[in-house]
Amino acid sequence: MENIDRLAIQTLRTLSLEEINAANSGHPGIALGIAPIMYTLYTKVLKIYPFDEKWYNRDRFVLAAGHASSILYASLHLAGFPLELEDLKQFRKLNSKTPGHPEITLTKGIDASSGPLGQGIPEAVGMAIAESHLREKFNKDGYDIVNHYTYVLCGDGDLQEGVTQEAISLAGHLKLSKLIILYDSNDIQLDGKVSLANTEKVKEKYSSMGFEYLFVSDGEDIDVLYKTIKKAQKSDKPSFIEIKTKIGHGSSLEGSNKVHGNPLPSEEVKKFRSEIGGEAFTVKDEVYNIYDNRNKLNKKQYLKEMKALEKYQEAYPNEYLQFLKQFSDEFDLDIRKDLPTFTSDYNKATRVSNGEILESVSKIDYRLIGGSADLVSSTKVKGLDGNFDETNRLGRNINFGVREHAMAAICNGITLHRGLRGFCGGFFVFSDYMKPAIRLSAIMELPVLYMFTHDSIAVGEDGPTHQPIEQLTMLRSVPNLNVIRPCDAVEVKEAYDVYLKSFNNPTVFVLTRQNVPTIREDKGENLLAYGAYIIHKETEDLERIILASGSEVSLAIEVAKELKGTRVISVPSFFLFEKQSKEYKEKLLPVGIKRIAIEASDATHFYKYLNEDDMLININTFGESASANKVMDYFGFTKDKVLEKIKNN
Amino acid sequence: MENIDRLAIQTLRTLSLEEINAANSGHPGIALGIAPIMYTLYTKVLKIYPFDEKWYNRDRFVLAAGHASSILYASLHLAGFPLELEDLKQFRKLNSKTPGHPEITLTKGIDASSGPLGQGIPEAVGMAIAESHLREKFNKDGYDIVNHYTYVLCGDGDLQEGVTQEAISLAGHLKLSKLIILYDSNDIQLDGKVSLANTEKVKEKYSSMGFEYLFVSDGEDIDVLYKTIKKAQKSDKPSFIEIKTKIGHGSSLEGSNKVHGNPLPSEEVKKFRSEIGGEAFTVKDEVYNIYDNRNKLNKKQYLKEMKALEKYQEAYPNEYLQFLKQFSDEFDLDIRKDLPTFTSDYNKATRVSNGEILESVSKIDYRLIGGSADLVSSTKVKGLDGNFDETNRLGRNINFGVREHAMAAICNGITLHRGLRGFCGGFFVFSDYMKPAIRLSAIMELPVLYMFTHDSIAVGEDGPTHQPIEQLTMLRSVPNLNVIRPCDAVEVKEAYDVYLKSFNNPTVFVLTRQNVPTIREDKGENLLAYGAYIIHKETEDLERIILASGSEVSLAIEVAKELKGTRVISVPSFFLFEKQSKEYKEKLLPVGIKRIAIEASDATHFYKYLNEDDMLININTFGESASANKVMDYFGFTKDKVLEKIKNN
Repeated sequence: MENIDRLAIQTLRTLSLEEINAANSGHPGIALGIAPIMYTLYTKVLKIYPFDEKWYNRDRFVLAAGHASSILYASLHLAGFPLELEDLKQFRKLNSKTPGHPEITLTKGIDASSGPLGQGIPEAVGMAIAESHLREKFNKDGYDIVNHYTYVLCGDGDLQEGVTQEAISLAGHLKLSKLIILYDSNDIQLDGKVSLANTEKVKEKYSSMGFEYLFVSDGEDIDVLYKTIKKAQKSDKPSFIEIKTKIGHGSSLEGSNKVHGNPLPSEEVKKFRSEIGGEAFTVKDEVYNIYDNRNKLNKKQYLKEMKALEKYQEAYPNEYLQFLKQFSDEFDLDIRKDLPTFTSDYNKATRVSNGEILESVSKIDYRLIGGSADLVSSTKVKGLDGNFDETNRLGRNINFGVREHAMAAICNGITLHRGLRGFCGGFFVFSDYMKPAIRLSAIMELPVLYMFTHDSIAVGEDGPTHQPIEQLTMLRSVPNLNVIRPCDAVEVKEAYDVYLKSFNNPTVFVLTRQNVPTIREDKGENLLAYGAYIIHKETEDLERIILASGSEVSLAIEVAKELKGTRVISVPSFFLFEKQSKEYKEKLLPVGIKRIAIEASDATHFYKYLNEDDMLININTFGESASANKVMDYFGFTKDKVLEKIKNN
Repeated sequence: MENIDRLAIQTLRTLSLEEINAANSGHPGIALGIAPIMYTLYTKVLKIYPFDEKWYNRDRFVLAAGHASSILYASLHLAGFPLELEDLKQFRKLNSKTPGHPEITLTKGIDASSGPLGQGIPEAVGMAIAESHLREKFNKDGYDIVNHYTYVLCGDGDLQEGVTQEAISLAGHLKLSKLIILYDSNDIQLDGKVSLANTEKVKEKYSSMGFEYLFVSDGEDIDVLYKTIKKAQKSDKPSFIEIKTKIGHGSSLEGSNKVHGNPLPSEEVKKFRSEIGGEAFTVKDEVYNIYDNRNKLNKKQYLKEMKALEKYQEAYPNEYLQFLKQFSDEFDLDIRKDLPTFTSDYNKATRVSNGEILESVSKIDYRLIGGSADLVSSTKVKGLDGNFDETNRLGRNINFGVREHAMAAICNGITLHRGLRGFCGGFFVFSDYMKPAIRLSAIMELPVLYMFTHDSIAVGEDGPTHQPIEQLTMLRSVPNLNVIRPCDAVEVKEAYDVYLKSFNNPTVFVLTRQNVPTIREDKGENLLAYGAYIIHKETEDLERIILASGSEVSLAIEVAKELKGTRVISVPSFFLFEKQSKEYKEKLLPVGIKRIAIEASDATHFYKYLNEDDMLININTFGESASANKVMDYFGFTKDKVLEKIKNN
């Protein structure tokens, strides 16, 4: 290794340690171990440009091992992103740009929030899918306007996670040749040696799943590392590079799990600093120069590509406009004009109307790509233009296989990439499998669309394992997640309107398996957008108010027709309703009027709008296996049983 | 194949189809495909005894592909379990013993509820762990009182699930040689060919994870199948038998995904029936005889083992007693007498007190086995007697690796086996990863113990990805799950008392990372068992009531000390509180008194006990990265900020 390289790598290590010790919190072990990898990436490999950090054709880099944030921040600083030494001093402090784990919403130059193990690799898979689709769609002879690699750096923990295994299996199947996994293989995890928990044959395993397996025996050897990455770039398969490193490299705890998550003694940090010289949190010019040189090269490439794009605009003006539109996240679609109209004789399940609307929207909005984890025939959630695979990169239907969790995390990756918006279908009860990725959609403020069908005990015969009870409560409680349970096809359409205008939050549609009547007229204002609204007016003096969502709205209206002083409020979205004014809420729910909420679920969120004397008709046990009508009757969700409960209350 | 074998196999197929058509709902494809496997298992392989269906040393069989329930029920009927032809006619009907997917709580002879893909294999892994531990612990020279195989039958969907991949990797590592996976490899899944979503090299993949890979090229060839299972039994590794079958075998839709989930036309069912003769839902005596013959052999074995057990009782009376105790689920431990006492100067995190108590309890209760998914050093959740591995089957600490989901599903399997109770540790936010398995613990009524630490934004520097917000709401909404958030070491002890007396529900402990004071005196009645109770009495006329849980209880008491008319109610468990009488609840919460709930979480469940004028101090956004105190202050969880809010309300 050249001295200058060593100086730069030791600078990365020292800054990382100084950050951690200033915070008195952080993860020195991995930062010391992966410094040569990070150095190689940011000075020799990554095509990025700090002055346009959202450059659509940059290489993507996901630090799956998000606990290595300290060295990522140090790298971004050196690479010229707007992250100053002062920011590094604020590591893990309130309101800093350098939080404990990387957050895409706070720091420029970060391609994904990370920290929860297992999520990074599927996100990278999603980015690689997006790249290959957009490449096929927009590139023309002589115009490689989309053409970049996706790198992801992971540790042992990531690879042990099932969601990663799902994603790797799919990536190999899809032959995503521009995906490169860098595996920080240091034989140590938090509780001790990796061999305590894992003794797989790594090469055989990843080769069996269609990856090009490459091996770097010494992670300090940046020449070999660089050459190996170059080799990976040329493979026609996705690549998996195992790089042997030492956790806590160069510290007294090198090779020990003790260096994972606690600051080193300050004398050790000083020792690191003394090797490179200077005060704490300073960087020698020679080191900045290396990164600047890389920047110059990248700038040249950036300008070249921007010029090419101008020419592309001239040669292919329509494609160029479409390209801009897909990346701008601006999209106008008038749900009343541009989509089929539903009339009162339409009496199908909301999974069916959703499938129809999704198809119509997808014909207009080319950003939509996704799939349904081997449930297309049941959920009706399907992408257009055929299956996305090796031979058809234009396909917008992804056969994820029965890999729900990876599906969700991959949709995060697709949406992170920009230019596309990922969507997922599934049975509502199995949203459980996707919860960690859904949470990350919400944290990263990504407009991913989740469409869950079979949304209550009305699933019927498949029984309790397939009947959601608590899933509405689970998802309604996730911050920044818009959970919408439409009552009919008209509300489904309005839900699309809301989704398409959502730029900073994911959306969940909760849809029925069973048929529901069309209650609303398909025109006028988007009432669903209020989150809750009067769907059936009282026909005498107001005596009581029934709140309901989804398939229980028509039930509530049936009841209200028997009890004339009854108002029915459709509550498709608490997320949207919470945004309404106090006045609006009070108009809907005048003080002192008896309230009843009906939902065939745990339905806890309704309690916020119920007082002690009010009534919640919900379900607090698991379901039953029988036909949908029998089960609904068993749990009391029929007109007669609800009327009886109201009478007896 | 002998004619009689063919008759029996066709009988299985026909009964399955008749069940499905009577229900007009079900999954014929797999039932037709796996009939020879089911026949081989129940007539030649499984050591089971229908008259003692909970026989502790029976072979375990998990039908991971639970949608094949129709043929499982047919098999159980033929094998002599208390499931009559009348029951088969009630398939998928309300209150039947033959629900849509197998339910352990309803039907004798079923070893695990199944249906949600991915869960079955880890459950079988758990059973094999339990077997190997109990075998090592109780067997003596000449007394193989524990010695059985665990079989699991799965399809393509199961194997694509990440949780399965986690479990297989661990099972191979642990060399669980008595685990045998039967892979129904039919090249078809719901949305079409498996090759649409998966093109792994199966042999290489499972071999790389330490499995003995075996192949049966024709799933109709029961001789080869039987010989291959025998071979698997002898392997010193766990075995993975890939069996090529045809979905919908013998139907007009053979080999097509269309036969997966819809009944066949009734003429086709009649054709199946006409081949074997007799009326619908009848079985020829010759067929019963085959199963009876197997039963006779199994009975002989059963009686032999029971005799051996009697002799064991004489030779090893203490071990015998311990054995009985472990299997009986009877366990007495007096938390005040048998565990260390906590005094008011104990000022540690509940994760620490929990670790200490877990250790004390585990020294007395040998059933407890589990681990913490590579987080032992953080969660302090560790099993005794060393690491469970190939060389130490007595170890009760399982190094699960970073495989949270499989950990939970494996603990279901351990607990399903009986003789042991599985426990899991983890960071609370990552309970998300385990949700599907936690739900199954609750559905199966298993006393699994989940201990989640780092339970709020007070996680601090690790930031929003590591700070739970909505997880309390998520788990509180799961039916039959007791979520306990103790406020101090004394409540932790009381939580153990509740857990040890819980036989039909799983329990979750939600524990702090940060120190908390010891509020209660460690004596007297178990107050936590009420779910909610007065922990601080008002010192003047009652003006307001503060409800709080966990680390917010001491904060509430600080506030109450400033506002003398304030009562504080500790609410460690809504699950327990809901079981209390109306009178008890009203005593705690007199009508007309202002209520305030404080919890550093989404906290939606408190709304049930709040009226419109009351106040909830909670969190509705994701967290922040900073020191715990800074974050708690930022979100308003300090005495002064709470006092201010109360004043301004």
